[in-house]
Amino acid sequence: MEIGITTFAETTTDPATGLRFDPAKRLSNLLQEMRLADEVGLDVFGVGEHHRPDFAAPSPTVILGAAAAVTSRIRLSSAVTVLGTDDPVRVFEDFSTVDLLSNGRAEVWAGRGSFTESFPLFGYGLNDYDQLFADKLDLLLKLRENERVTWEGLGRAPIDDLGVYPRPVQQPLPVWIAVGGNPNSVMRAGRLGLPLVLAIIGGEPRRFVPLIDLYRESAREAGHDPAKLPVAINSHGFIADDADDAVATFYPPYAEVMSTIGRERGWSAMTRSQSLVVGLHR
Amino acid sequence: MEIGITTFAETTTDPATGLRFDPAKRLSNLLQEMRLADEVGLDVFGVGEHHRPDFAAPSPTVILGAAAAVTSRIRLSSAVTVLGTDDPVRVFEDFSTVDLLSNGRAEVWAGRGSFTESFPLFGYGLNDYDQLFADKLDLLLKLRENERVTWEGLGRAPIDDLGVYPRPVQQPLPVWIAVGGNPNSVMRAGRLGLPLVLAIIGGEPRRFVPLIDLYRESAREAGHDPAKLPVAINSHGFIADDADDAVATFYPPYAEVMSTIGRERGWSAMTRSQSLVVGLHR
Repeated sequence: MEIGITTFAETTTDPATGLRFDPAKRLSNLLQEMRLADEVGLDVFGVGEHHRPDFAAPSPTVILGAAAAVTSRIRLSSAVTVLGTDDPVRVFEDFSTVDLLSNGRAEVWAGRGSFTESFPLFGYGLNDYDQLFADKLDLLLKLRENERVTWEGLGRAPIDDLGVYPRPVQQPLPVWIAVGGNPNSVMRAGRLGLPLVLAIIGGEPRRFVPLIDLYRESAREAGHDPAKLPVAINSHGFIADDADDAVATFYPPYAEVMSTIGRERGWSAMTRSQSLVVGLHR
Repeated sequence: MEIGITTFAETTTDPATGLRFDPAKRLSNLLQEMRLADEVGLDVFGVGEHHRPDFAAPSPTVILGAAAAVTSRIRLSSAVTVLGTDDPVRVFEDFSTVDLLSNGRAEVWAGRGSFTESFPLFGYGLNDYDQLFADKLDLLLKLRENERVTWEGLGRAPIDDLGVYPRPVQQPLPVWIAVGGNPNSVMRAGRLGLPLVLAIIGGEPRRFVPLIDLYRESAREAGHDPAKLPVAINSHGFIADDADDAVATFYPPYAEVMSTIGRERGWSAMTRSQSLVVGLHR
């Protein structure tokens, strides 16, 4: 088993002061966190892409590049790369650069995206949400297999036998499929024989077991050995000396984030007992 | 006057061994060079975007992100960003991230591009070469002026009053216009009141004086004070104890690069005396 940390580089409004956290300070703190995670021996640090005022990481690979320069062994991941609204050629070039800078520690976590801001921002329609991801994933996988590629698909100009450089240290560059709970996405990851990372943002982890079973079954049916396919989960977490301390410290800013996002998505407001349940399950 | 270094992170074949320079080693060396440049007090370090096997920097901002983490005062530039084939929203987000990581040391050098690989690779036509740059520059300038933008133009989806984050430390984020010698590009930079960087890849620097005059005249006509508009030049350079040493060391790899590129562009082969002339003029 391996353990790591992922973040979206939150610049959430502090409920105590009403002020938004300064993004320069947030990224400075983040680099210190990544350096410390490397020093204490965590296995992976992931930075996720969002295009909103409450997060400071629309460009995870720039931050992972910075982390590559100040860490020596921790793996550096996107968590996630919103592949459907990006260009897989740029994604490959950026991650290949992180991989070279880190001497083979880069990983792409490719997902369809849990927020939708990047769709109108980069000119894509949400009705193409799944097909954009499928087609662009196909291109990304071709790029990591071959120096020159030919490809045609949705949401990106076709490519006719062109080379993409530089080539990464890792052959192939690791690509994980990041899923929020959609069974079709889980089956796709299995069929392709790609490692799976599952986001458990709320709810009890045991409820996600059937998805892992489905993933392994899909992999087996497609001829892949499930025992060789790693599975990761991501959950909100906070560590303190005891559970009361953890809830007292963590609840106010956590509720601020979840309520802000919940208002956009029509969730009911978070309660303190939910937070505690989450806390006890981690 | 300020002085700096720019590079494309060459991975040129070594004429002595016939081997291509390892891109991981090249980027490791580059970070050391950037750190040293910062320590000895150079003013700026620029990394230029190319999409070819003989250069390791298709993603300058990932490298600038790494440099931000290991330098403290040198300015960090692209040299150049090929704006016509990129997405100005991604460009702004990436440079804003470099700016936050470096506490306000990022600069965009935006150019139309001297190599053409990025056009077929990203699905653009060379017949739109100039209009793509003009329209995307307009969007980039809008993005640095306002948190929310509305835009419509060539080579990118329109944007209807959307926000782009995070905002950089510098207000506004510096944008230079990088020009290879085209008079219309020089006039555009002047009209927009943007700083100019001129690439002098070959030929005598004095031949470029009329372009600088044209730039300042265009700026003045558009109501900008030319005295407040910095001008930079970039040339190939190599420093040794004396001119003979410089030519003996620099000539073989330099001729390899210039002849490789020259063959693609139909230049005549480089001679040792040309190299010497270049050496004496720097």
